[in-house]
Amino acid sequence: MSNPSAAMLVIGDEILSGRTRDSNMHYLAGELTKIGIDLKEARFIADDHVTIMETVKSLSAVHDQVFTSGGIGPTHDDITAEAVAAAFETSISIRADARAILQAHYDRQGVELNEARLRMARIPKEANLIDNPISAAPGFSLKNVHVMAGVPSICQAMIASVLPSLTGGAPLLSQTLRLERGEGDIAEPLSKLANLFSDVLIGSYPFQKDGNYGTNIVLRSTDEHRISQAKQQLKKLLDL
Amino acid sequence: MSNPSAAMLVIGDEILSGRTRDSNMHYLAGELTKIGIDLKEARFIADDHVTIMETVKSLSAVHDQVFTSGGIGPTHDDITAEAVAAAFETSISIRADARAILQAHYDRQGVELNEARLRMARIPKEANLIDNPISAAPGFSLKNVHVMAGVPSICQAMIASVLPSLTGGAPLLSQTLRLERGEGDIAEPLSKLANLFSDVLIGSYPFQKDGNYGTNIVLRSTDEHRISQAKQQLKKLLDL
Repeated sequence: MSNPSAAMLVIGDEILSGRTRDSNMHYLAGELTKIGIDLKEARFIADDHVTIMETVKSLSAVHDQVFTSGGIGPTHDDITAEAVAAAFETSISIRADARAILQAHYDRQGVELNEARLRMARIPKEANLIDNPISAAPGFSLKNVHVMAGVPSICQAMIASVLPSLTGGAPLLSQTLRLERGEGDIAEPLSKLANLFSDVLIGSYPFQKDGNYGTNIVLRSTDEHRISQAKQQLKKLLDL
Repeated sequence: MSNPSAAMLVIGDEILSGRTRDSNMHYLAGELTKIGIDLKEARFIADDHVTIMETVKSLSAVHDQVFTSGGIGPTHDDITAEAVAAAFETSISIRADARAILQAHYDRQGVELNEARLRMARIPKEANLIDNPISAAPGFSLKNVHVMAGVPSICQAMIASVLPSLTGGAPLLSQTLRLERGEGDIAEPLSKLANLFSDVLIGSYPFQKDGNYGTNIVLRSTDEHRISQAKQQLKKLLDL
């Protein structure tokens, strides 16, 4: 049985212009691997209503879980919630539960819950709120789409809120063999190994650092025993 | 007249599993912005022949330029060149020009140009080679698709080899106004500004650092004068 599949959708002009470097995808990738959900693809798109809507629709149809980050703040360029609602043809408005969370948060701070901040209470009708322990304004899950903030600390907190509710598969385990040899020297034995162990994912990652070069061979499988067998076989093939 | 559009395709299981954090997309994004090519989307996909082929086909049809990184080394999991050739239904084989580059490089190093290393001379028939000043093995451009290495230093060198040959548009300029106020406080004036300056891109990026919070407002346009006008107007709206 294969693991559930997932896609990540990172939304924001600032990332595509090179102003900001995204870190949410890398973080989510690591967390999903731990619980046995396979991140199959990630997409980075601009703050554009139609693009967000269509991308959410197509990813949601293909994958078991979809995660978005970015575009759920109080300003004019925060249009993700509207676009996700449109993708599922569901209505969106200021919801009492989300409003209460914001009201309590801003009351504690002595800050007015003005019209702009109230936009963050706009949640699609059938969505479940995602807890935001950092700045209160919630994300939401609508069907299999989990809509989260772009600010890394908030996104990470929301990922922690969502993941326990999802059914994972067998976590992908890995072992790494670090070799002080170039890829060109080990490609042939590696290819032999791949033929012998078609059930183990075998990745080859060259590195070049401080004048040293070499290759990290990463063996991945849900079966620890098979990884160890493959590692042993690889050492034999490399005369180690 | 709008700028040429581009897409980035990052290929590699190691990035989707969270093992490696990509840096090529962020680098390319910044370089493209400088020369007036708009990065419209980026996709991260696994080392899978059909997925690479179909994604290249669809991105190439929609965008003026497509850049790929990853999967052009000598090992069994390096399948990008084959998949890009398949996307354009063109033949691929060991090419004399690429072979000569590799032969000279490995001769200098006193290293054998074995069968695995020779795989890096497999280049589609009509492709132009992309210079690799770091480790010799070339990338290639086939139609509007530029196929580059995944190792960041090599990818950056290849980007430098490719970009001068492309026709850019008007570079996107930007000015940033840093405010010690939360997004919720400035959303309304910002929305007014967006209505007044529909030709200026207005982005709002909250930050939270060392107990301080605030918002960076970034104004972007190809017209420096319009940016300055918008900035002045924004200061007025904010009583600065």
